[in-house]
Order: sequence, then C-alpha cells, then structure tokens
Amino acid sequence: MIANTNMDTLTSLCKRRGFIFHSSEIYGGINGFWDYGPFGCEMKNNIKKAWWDSMVRTREDVVGLDATIIMHPSVWKASGHLSTFSDPMCTCRSCKKLMRADQVGDILLDGDAGKSLAELLQGGVDAAKIAGWCKGKAKGQAPNLIAVQNADALTLAFHALQDHPEKFATVQAVYTLLAKPDAGEGTPYLACPYCGGELTEPRPFNLMFKTVVGPVDNAENVAYLRPETAQAIFAEFPNIVATSRVSVPFGIAQIGKSFRNEVTPRNYTFRSREFEQMELEFFIRPDEAVELICGHVRTMKDNPDLSTPQTDWGWEIWHKYWVEQRKAWIRRVGLPEADFTEYWQKPDELAHYARACVDIEYQFPFGLQELEGIAARSDYDLSQHQLHSGKSMEVFDEELKAAVSKMDDAAKAAFTEKTVADWVARGKDEEKARKFLDSLFQGRYIPHVIEPSSGVDRMMLALLCNAYDEQKLTDSKGKDDSRIVLHFSPVVAPVKVAVFPLVKNKPEVYNKAREVFEYLRKRVAAFWDEGGAIGRRYRRQDEIGTPWCITVDFQTLEDGTFTVRDRDSMGQERMTLQQFRDKMEEALL
Amino acid sequence: MIANTNMDTLTSLCKRRGFIFHSSEIYGGINGFWDYGPFGCEMKNNIKKAWWDSMVRTREDVVGLDATIIMHPSVWKASGHLSTFSDPMCTCRSCKKLMRADQVGDILLDGDAGKSLAELLQGGVDAAKIAGWCKGKAKGQAPNLIAVQNADALTLAFHALQDHPEKFATVQAVYTLLAKPDAGEGTPYLACPYCGGELTEPRPFNLMFKTVVGPVDNAENVAYLRPETAQAIFAEFPNIVATSRVSVPFGIAQIGKSFRNEVTPRNYTFRSREFEQMELEFFIRPDEAVELICGHVRTMKDNPDLSTPQTDWGWEIWHKYWVEQRKAWIRRVGLPEADFTEYWQKPDELAHYARACVDIEYQFPFGLQELEGIAARSDYDLSQHQLHSGKSMEVFDEELKAAVSKMDDAAKAAFTEKTVADWVARGKDEEKARKFLDSLFQGRYIPHVIEPSSGVDRMMLALLCNAYDEQKLTDSKGKDDSRIVLHFSPVVAPVKVAVFPLVKNKPEVYNKAREVFEYLRKRVAAFWDEGGAIGRRYRRQDEIGTPWCITVDFQTLEDGTFTVRDRDSMGQERMTLQQFRDKMEEALL
Repeated sequence: MIANTNMDTLTSLCKRRGFIFHSSEIYGGINGFWDYGPFGCEMKNNIKKAWWDSMVRTREDVVGLDATIIMHPSVWKASGHLSTFSDPMCTCRSCKKLMRADQVGDILLDGDAGKSLAELLQGGVDAAKIAGWCKGKAKGQAPNLIAVQNADALTLAFHALQDHPEKFATVQAVYTLLAKPDAGEGTPYLACPYCGGELTEPRPFNLMFKTVVGPVDNAENVAYLRPETAQAIFAEFPNIVATSRVSVPFGIAQIGKSFRNEVTPRNYTFRSREFEQMELEFFIRPDEAVELICGHVRTMKDNPDLSTPQTDWGWEIWHKYWVEQRKAWIRRVGLPEADFTEYWQKPDELAHYARACVDIEYQFPFGLQELEGIAARSDYDLSQHQLHSGKSMEVFDEELKAAVSKMDDAAKAAFTEKTVADWVARGKDEEKARKFLDSLFQGRYIPHVIEPSSGVDRMMLALLCNAYDEQKLTDSKGKDDSRIVLHFSPVVAPVKVAVFPLVKNKPEVYNKAREVFEYLRKRVAAFWDEGGAIGRRYRRQDEIGTPWCITVDFQTLEDGTFTVRDRDSMGQERMTLQQFRDKMEEALL
Repeated sequence: MIANTNMDTLTSLCKRRGFIFHSSEIYGGINGFWDYGPFGCEMKNNIKKAWWDSMVRTREDVVGLDATIIMHPSVWKASGHLSTFSDPMCTCRSCKKLMRADQVGDILLDGDAGKSLAELLQGGVDAAKIAGWCKGKAKGQAPNLIAVQNADALTLAFHALQDHPEKFATVQAVYTLLAKPDAGEGTPYLACPYCGGELTEPRPFNLMFKTVVGPVDNAENVAYLRPETAQAIFAEFPNIVATSRVSVPFGIAQIGKSFRNEVTPRNYTFRSREFEQMELEFFIRPDEAVELICGHVRTMKDNPDLSTPQTDWGWEIWHKYWVEQRKAWIRRVGLPEADFTEYWQKPDELAHYARACVDIEYQFPFGLQELEGIAARSDYDLSQHQLHSGKSMEVFDEELKAAVSKMDDAAKAAFTEKTVADWVARGKDEEKARKFLDSLFQGRYIPHVIEPSSGVDRMMLALLCNAYDEQKLTDSKGKDDSRIVLHFSPVVAPVKVAVFPLVKNKPEVYNKAREVFEYLRKRVAAFWDEGGAIGRRYRRQDEIGTPWCITVDFQTLEDGTFTVRDRDSMGQERMTLQQFRDKMEEALL
C-alpha cells in the first residue's frame, strides 16, 4: 500500500479525522511539536500498550519503570550527552543566518548551487566512499550527516548517486570540509548558501533542552529535559536490583516522553522536538561469566533455536534474540515482514563501546528511515554511571559464585591468561581485564546490555503510511466507487468495533443494538453510529481503520445474530455476540 | 486504616517493594522529582487506565487528546500563567538566603520565634478571620498562602487554632504584611528568620519551567513546560470541534505530565516539581442557550436525578453531576466515601471567573489535602484564547438555531431585556451581554466549561496511605503473628493475581500451575512465585496488595479446581479457572 501513500494525502486524512494536529495551531503553531487528537491518542495508547504487554506484562524477566523527564544533570555528564550530543552549527557573518554546518550542502543541493561548487572543490572521492556516505546519510547515521533537508533532497541525492557521481563528490567534499570541527584558521570555508557571505566555524550546539530547577537561576541549578528514556533505567538499576527479586538476565523497560532541540525538525511526526520512546535495557552476563558457569559460550555459529532463552547464550545470541522478538512485535502491530528491512551496522559505523547494532527500517514516503534500533552496548552505560556516581553497578551472581568455587587455582590462572590475552587482542587494557576477573571470581560483574529502542511516534507514522489505501470499487449497481481505508491491525486500531442499528425508528432494534454496544464498550473501544445509510457508516469507519462493523437488524431480535462486516474483505457474516467476542479476543490477545 | 499509617513506614515500604524511588538517587537525588519502580508504574498505569476508561472510553460524549508539554508561549499569556502563576519571593540582604515571602511565618513558627513577633506586631484579627485563613492555609488555596513548610507546622497551626488563637493572629499579621507586593518603601518588613537581617520586598517568581526552542537563545524563542494539561485542551478545541463530530455538551480529556518549579517541594510525591494530571474539560451550553432551547433551566433547587444528563440542565447541575461522577470513580479505585471529604469553596475564595469549585480532600498523614478539584469555570478559558489568538472559539448549535427561529421579535426583545438585566445585576458589562445575545440569536456561543482536574501522583499516594495496614494476627498454632497488607481495590492493584505451585518438584503440579499462569497473564498482570512456604508467598503478595493468590495442588490435577486465597479476609475457596476468570472480570470491569 506504499505506492499510493503520499504524505500530503496522509497528513490531510490525519487532520480531517482527528489523528494528528499541529501543536498550538491557533497561535500559528510551534515547529517540531505535534498533538494527537481523539483517534490519534487512542492509537498511540494502543501501540504503547501492545509494547508494554509484549515487553513487560507477559514476560517474567522484565520489569517496568516510570522515571522523571528532568533528572540530576550528572546523569547526562555520565552518559556523554552533555559533551557529545550536539550538532555543528555555523552562522553567516553577513546575513547572520544560523544553519547546521552539515546541512549547508543540502541547502546548496536544494538551491542547485552544486555546479559552482564543483569548480571550487576537487572531487577526489571514490565511488564506494560516496555510496557509503549516501547510505549513511539516508539512514541518518553518519556522524555529522544526520539527515537531509527534506525528502526531495534525499531523492535527488539518490538519483544523483546513480547518474551523476561527480555531483556527490562535490557535496561530499563540502560536508567533509564543514564537518571538521578542528579545521584551522586558514581553512577555506564555504560561502553562505543564502547570501554568499563568510560562514563562521561550526560550533557544537547541544540538542538537550535546558531549564533551571528551583528559584535561583545559576549554573548549579541547570537541568535538562531527557533526550532519551534509557539513562533513567541505568540510574535506577541499583534500586531495582535491590528491591525487585530480579537476577541477570533480566530487563527494565520504560515508555515516556523525550525531548531533542532539533535544529530542523521535519518529516511530519518523524523527527520532532518532543516525542515518545519505548526502551528496554536487557541486562545479560558478560560472556566470561557464561563461560565460567556453562563451560562454553554459545554463539550464532551454533545455529541456536531462538525461541527460548538459554543459560549458555553469549551476547551475540541475546542480541539476535531481541532482533527477532522485536520483528515479531512489529509484525503483530501491523507491518508485514516484507515492508520493513533490517540493517546491520558495519563495524566502522558502530559507537566505540557497541558490539553490534541493527536498525529496523521502513520505506517512508520521504525515504528509508529507522523505526527502531537494537544495540548490544556492552557494559558501557552502567560503567559510566559507576564511574561518575561512585556507586557500584555490579551484581552478585549466585550461580557464578558456585561455579567459581568449584575451580582450582590452576583453572583460574588458565582462565585469567586466556581472558587477558583475549581482551588485549581486542585492544583493551590489561589492567582492566585483571580487575574485571578479580570481581568475576567473587561472583560479581557489571552486566552487559542489549537495548531495543523504539519510537512511538515513528512507529505510529509507519503504521499509518502502511495502512493507508485508496481503493477503486464497483458498487452494487456496477458503478465506479472508491473508498479510503486504513488497514490497521486490530491491536492498534483506535476503534475496535462500531455498532449500528439498521434503523433508528424501531425501538426494539435500536435498544437491542444499544445493548450489544454497551456490552462491547465495557471491554474494548467501541463506537456507536446511528446516522445515515449503512454504507456511509462503513466508509466512516474504514477511514479510521475500524476492523469490524456490527449491524443489528430485525433478525437479531429473532435469533440473536447480527451482521459483522470485515473492513478489509468487506465481506459480511452473521454471528452471535459470544461468537463475535471470541473472534475479537483471539485477534486482540 | 489511616490511624496506623505514618509517612515513614509507608515511604519505607514504597522503596523496599519497588513502588517509588527518589529520582537520580545515585547522584544524591534531585529535590521534587520521584520515579515509579516496577510495582509503582504498574499501579500508576492502572489509575490512569481506570480514569480513561471511566472518563473517555465508556462515554460517548468525551474524546481524548494527547498534546505536547511544550506549546507556543502565547498559550500561557492567554491563560494568565505568564503574569500570575507565581510565588512571592524575598531575599535576605544580609545572609542572601532566598525564601518564599508567604512562608516566612512558617519558618518563624518552626523556629519557635513566634513569641518575639507577638511583641512586635499587634494581633487585631478576629477569630473568624483566623479560622478562615487557617482553613485556606490547610487547603493550600488562600492567595499567597499556598502551603506550609512541613507537616509539623500544619499540625502546630491547627492545634494553635484551637488553643492559642493569639499565636495565629501573630503569624497572620506577618503573612499579611509580607504578602503585600505593593507595600511602600516605608513598610516595616520583618527580619530574616535565619539571621535577623533585612528582607527585600517580595518579588514574583514564576513557577513555570523555562526553556528555549531552537538554536537561537533569545526572548522570542523562550517556551515553557506546561504547568497544567488543561490549556492544551482549550487550544485544540477548534480542531476537535471541526474534526470529531462532537456537539455541546461534550468533553475533551487528557492525561499527561505537568511541571511546576515549586520553591519548596514537599510531602513525598504529593507536591513535586514533575507530576501527572488527569483533566477533563466538559463543555456545556451557557444557561441562556438552555433556556432558549428548553424554555427553562433546571437548577439544583429542582432536585434533579443526576444519573443521566438532561438537555434542560443548567451549569449548576452539570457541575454537581461531575462532582458525583468523580466521587463514584474515587470510590471505585478504592477510597471509601467515609475517607474523603467534599469542600465547597466560598464565594470569596473563588477565582473571579469561576462559578463554583469543589475540592475532594483526603486526610493524609501530613494533613487534609486536595486530591482533585471540580470547577465551573464559565467561558473564561475559551474566551481568553479567542481574545489572544483572534480565532473564534464559538460553536454553532443546530438546536439553538432551530429554537431561535421559532421566536418572534417580541420574544427576542423580552429575552434580551431579561438577560441584560441579569448580567448587569451580576456586575457584568451591558455591551458584552448584547454581543453575547447577538451571537446566541444566530445559534452561536462560546461554551462554558466544567473542569474535573485530578493528580495521578496524589491519587496514588492517597490510595497507598489508605490501603496500608499492619495487622496483628494469630497463626495456626495460636502464636502471635503480623502482616503488612495493602488493601488496594483490584482495579488499581499492580498485580491482580499470583499463581503458586504447591510444590516445585512434582512436574504435573508444576506444569499445571504454569498452564494456569500462562492463561491468566495473557489477560491481566499476573505474578509467578515458586519459592518458599505458601504462607511466605502470601505475605509477599499482601505487601504489594495482590487481591488473589492461586495455589495449584494435587486436587487440581483431579478436578481442575485450585485454591483462591482472598487478600483481605485471608479466606480460601476452591474454584475452576472459568469460575475464577468470571470473578475477576466482575471485579475489574
């Protein structure tokens, strides 16, 4: 259904049917902020509930957390957000316009100023590098090349990659030049794409929203709106370990708002300044602990069955397990496997502490974009918080302690030598390895973490794009007809069932329909509609993606059955209330 | 159960069992911010769901909204928060301490410095005034007397009211003096309660958290974290009316975080800087429209049946209707009617635009405090946004138009004269009355609003306080025993049912128990516990308020029944899975 989805028709439907409004529209709006209207907030709640059900409620190895948006600023020092979570900005010394240094090239591309640049700069970048850069750019991941100005520029970039590689070399050179924060005074900075004036050096602009807590406005009281929900999980890790009878492997999940002061928010709700995340931090044993306990570490080479976690899994299998879990969930909320792709980051794309990262991507009308990421982040985050807070983030592992107690000194020495050699071979510090082993032999370690991190808003946008369909139909008289329909999965559909009385003016039929409606709305989101022809009522529900419409008629009074009309097939079937309830429960559980 | 609840034992349980943690505790915490741990966030989610089910999902006259926390700053100009949402602060010119002017008296009271003040200031305030001030102070509502420093000061204040009225006169005089923002230079300000130094004049400190949107840090880009969710509802009112097939009377509901930069956050989660609200704005016809449509306006004098809304209800009945709806909900989530009180604000306590306001209050261990308020706010909010945005907030009312079209000129003139006289008698502007009537005769008006506004965190805290119980018991051998139990209503309990296998080492029993558990956890929050004696497992569940514990034993294998143990009575009953499911559904629906 992607083919006939374009952003204009989709955003128009979203506003017309109360899914999404621009925030503060009566005051001219505020860029990068979106409100969810009546059906939008129901759908968003359904997505969050489906995630929570899958990740927390139906698992015994995950617990929830609901932490504050404003936390102690040291959290962001430890996490690195204070020093590195920034975009490079430059200002034109002439026209004073402020722009993202890494988007100057996009502005130039948009303005078709590429040619003059080609004369100014030597390409000298080979095709493979351009392809890699383009891919990174499209994915929004290459450092300092976070995204493109708009969908057209992206399309243009891709076409250009195929047809005019020299153009890309030009733009790449622009980026390379502007993205160098350590470039010296003499570096020939580019002209302002708006006025041709001289641009200042790029300076980092932190993407965290800043505020002040308490009445005294000084540096000591500065705090930030969280740019991600994950760090609260790490900060509360010791409290949860101490109070929740959890033991590694286990996870902590959180859903909540995050804020990023994007310089150029864009693509509707995809990249906004206030958004909602669903994050799980799943804590696992370091592979060395697994090896001590099990005598071996299973890896993907062992072709493991991923359905049920096993004690001998190493980080690699845990990571793959969560990729599969997440894909299953995405299918469940309505994206068929064929409609999303899995991108495994290359070693040189990974953060220095990361072992692996998979992006689940969706082909939006404005380009291929990340829906969620599943990262193996080693023990980086907890270690950082241990370092900055001075509080231990280690857990005590009974099974590990028991395993170690059975080892003799020779076995420990052999394990030590092997592990140290392995760490050193991976470029890590020998002293750190020995410290790690000291703890390990006492049954203690800082857990490693697998992080499936998903955005509520972009998941919802993908589901909207994917569900949107304009269908040509033939009506009962053979005439051409059409309908707009949202093919939502029942799990996320804002309304599960609509109930119609066939006629309004027959009290028996009307009251019977009300009875059916009252029964259903106690259990699920149900909608009552008594206005207009049944066909028109179907169309209204199609537009908001209601999977089933029930019509109560005269026959209902006789045998208790009513018509259930299926949104997608438009087929009708007679059922009793009990039969319908079972059908619905099966689809929703 | 209030008698044996004190805050120390409660907060200790809340931390020990993972309900509530101090935010950023590993970094020394951040004052006024609290995180909800595994059971806490489940309970908080249950409260929000119960509210949404009652206020939105099961009503046809209310729709939901999920708006952003950061909105256009003009929203707060229109609402009045920019100019008036502030506390008076003063600084000591000597020791530089910053304090709330209206709490200087509290600091003095705490420090037992009252006596010397008594000598300094003349009482001269009569007993009734003191009583009123005390009441306002306890309720946190008197202007500039928002709250007290701590629970002891409040208790002291109340005792003093009964026993030492002269002490109150003293403190009252202090407050009166300090609360005068327009007092001249010569006014004898009080000495600093810390060092005796001279205090500056009180200056307003706005309670909204401030931030900057976009990369340019200037006045134009300043924005605020919303101090309430209500204003987003008013701002999105025209969008929702245009897109949602709603007609007055109808409501818009929202649940979400709000932020207030309290100078002295206190009383655990009761008054924190980041909190969550559940607000409904229910829009009704102005009484004049009701009169034109129905020929009369029903008031509370008519002793109306409040169960089902009627077309002829005036604002007064609508307000009372929502008070009763809210009380029913509060009972449903677990506060018996005997445990909360209803306080009707006196005319001189009301905001100038408000027609009535009822506070639902709960006797917390730290004093009688507001749980929620139900206010009749006239058309004030929508009118303000119409004024500031220039966008019409009027709705068109078909029934009103139809009623007006049947009136002749004489009837209109008579209605006009009566209405104008009535407005003028209420101290309102004649010209405004005539403008209002012009619109009304065209079927248009700005709706009035009834606002039930509730705090998630304080509701949860009240439920925790009320549920907490330490019981002395006698065990099966006649020995003294005790238990801590949280008597939560099933609706809010974080875990609905725990499932235990009687024994761990009999696979048939164990697997049967797992089967029961798997069936239940697909449907509700269920907990599996296989560790220790059954009695200990019961105690663990009692402490987190789980209403039912199921034990699967050998008899289950024969007849499919298991033991269901009731948390409150501790009685046991054998049931089949189907019987238990029906029992549970009845309690939860």
